[in-house]
Amino acid sequence: MKEIVKTFQEAQSILIVSHSRPDGDAIGSMLALGLSLQRLGKNVVYYNQDAVPFNLIFLEQSKSIQQSIPNKHFDVTCIIDCNAPIRVSADFGKFKNYKKLIIIDHHVPHHSPCGDLIYIDPQAPAAGVLIYRIIQAMGINITSSIAEALYTTLLVDTGCFRYSNTTDEVFKLAQELVIKGAKPWKVSNFLYDSFPRSRLKALELALKTLEISSCGRYASIFLSRKTMEKLKINYEIVEGFINYPRSIDSVIVAVQFKEVGRNLYRISLRSKGNFDVSKIASLFDGGGHCNAAGLELSGSLSKVKKQLYDRIEFSLGELRD
Amino acid sequence: MKEIVKTFQEAQSILIVSHSRPDGDAIGSMLALGLSLQRLGKNVVYYNQDAVPFNLIFLEQSKSIQQSIPNKHFDVTCIIDCNAPIRVSADFGKFKNYKKLIIIDHHVPHHSPCGDLIYIDPQAPAAGVLIYRIIQAMGINITSSIAEALYTTLLVDTGCFRYSNTTDEVFKLAQELVIKGAKPWKVSNFLYDSFPRSRLKALELALKTLEISSCGRYASIFLSRKTMEKLKINYEIVEGFINYPRSIDSVIVAVQFKEVGRNLYRISLRSKGNFDVSKIASLFDGGGHCNAAGLELSGSLSKVKKQLYDRIEFSLGELRD
Repeated sequence: MKEIVKTFQEAQSILIVSHSRPDGDAIGSMLALGLSLQRLGKNVVYYNQDAVPFNLIFLEQSKSIQQSIPNKHFDVTCIIDCNAPIRVSADFGKFKNYKKLIIIDHHVPHHSPCGDLIYIDPQAPAAGVLIYRIIQAMGINITSSIAEALYTTLLVDTGCFRYSNTTDEVFKLAQELVIKGAKPWKVSNFLYDSFPRSRLKALELALKTLEISSCGRYASIFLSRKTMEKLKINYEIVEGFINYPRSIDSVIVAVQFKEVGRNLYRISLRSKGNFDVSKIASLFDGGGHCNAAGLELSGSLSKVKKQLYDRIEFSLGELRD
Repeated sequence: MKEIVKTFQEAQSILIVSHSRPDGDAIGSMLALGLSLQRLGKNVVYYNQDAVPFNLIFLEQSKSIQQSIPNKHFDVTCIIDCNAPIRVSADFGKFKNYKKLIIIDHHVPHHSPCGDLIYIDPQAPAAGVLIYRIIQAMGINITSSIAEALYTTLLVDTGCFRYSNTTDEVFKLAQELVIKGAKPWKVSNFLYDSFPRSRLKALELALKTLEISSCGRYASIFLSRKTMEKLKINYEIVEGFINYPRSIDSVIVAVQFKEVGRNLYRISLRSKGNFDVSKIASLFDGGGHCNAAGLELSGSLSKVKKQLYDRIEFSLGELRD
């Protein structure tokens, strides 16, 4: 980390990027680092392939994030919350306009990461925690905007302080960020209480599709393209719906089917305890973590369901043994 | 508070009670205090008129809470999370089998409370915070069971760290409780991910009743007795549904009408930011806090709605001025 701090301090122009379809940890970490480096007089540019989600645009400088790769040369390029340029965007793998590449992440790398300086800590509850440590090491004062961005990363990646990565360190950092000016109710309000009213109609329709297996241990909901089109909403708006089947007492595995094309379904899996859904996802070329994973399947909905349910039943059977 | 600590230390038998229809703050506070006093060798009895909600029975000693007033004499009776015996139960006003009455609460009292020793701090985010302070002052070691009970009070009364009462002190205490053995994921799982499946059907039906005012600033849902009877669920199961109208971007005040009798409605109010719903509730003999309050109104549903909406519109008008 010392090397990273030194490199940031010596650099003048810095490009900060993160993975496509960015979440609160990606955006919050990018902005917290950028706002901090600007305080040292650095020239900061942000890039993300996709637009900032509607509920994160309240963060300072979120509108400065560009959606095209800048045609400039940088002293440093910093990839946050993922560890491979390909996860940033298909084109980003070819981007070489920098002297040094820094990678800051909390995901276990699939392959050896390619950065000049690498700071990966899979124990960190959010990439924002790593950014916080770097800001501290650089001796930069945390302004209320930086605190707000960092608080957002904590909130999102701990599932609002609900996942098992909610440690005492998380609460200690949350306390400090509140002292520095982050307002929990304000951040929560933007993130989780500023939905368009159409979301509740979508939820009502999604709940209508609820299916619970005869054993009661897995349950699913389905979001059709027809529903999305009728309500004029995108899939960002229905984020978190999978928590509803997961909220049932007997349920260990929750499934959400999203129709993303003709006979094409994006499937999210969430589990409780130590039932590892990433193993199921990886059988279908998907991936993720123990309690949260995703995959895509093609075919008719009934065929796709059968394929997945068979696999879930098999894994649940193993659990029982 | 010193007097209260001294009284607890000198007492041998202590009755701990809280308000009817207890929530996580009431139950968690009762148990945290009781478990602590037992560590000093005290004889503790718990009383609550109503049963412990299903999602709180995981708390240690929750099964010891009696639903009838004990026919015994106590050195001390302690009322927690409300400040009038009548709020405990109709009969409890007549109960005088104690030497001293202690009241520990964080609600603003309507009338001068009748206890011998009174510790009311309306600034406290939860009654559990006051219990924590007393446990600290008594020098009692916080066990993991006590930590879990106190963590529950924080979680419930800050709306999972989302309301404006989520201060840096809340996070500092959460940190300490996690160090002492409270597991955030475990408590959250019992509280918010262990619902019977009928809850999702009730949610679907409740969302169907969603009404949004023409100004977009208040919204309501309605739960009828017919729905409850059809699904064979009680009102405990639908706890938290008011957060759905509250989740809409334009909404400042969320309202939930529950039909609890013929032409009788129990009404919950939730607000965002510093819009004080307890002021509205108190006009109708209800009460609560800035962001969470409740009241009862009788009459036809349309009459009840008009009465309340007029009042909300008036207060929203004042906000604008």
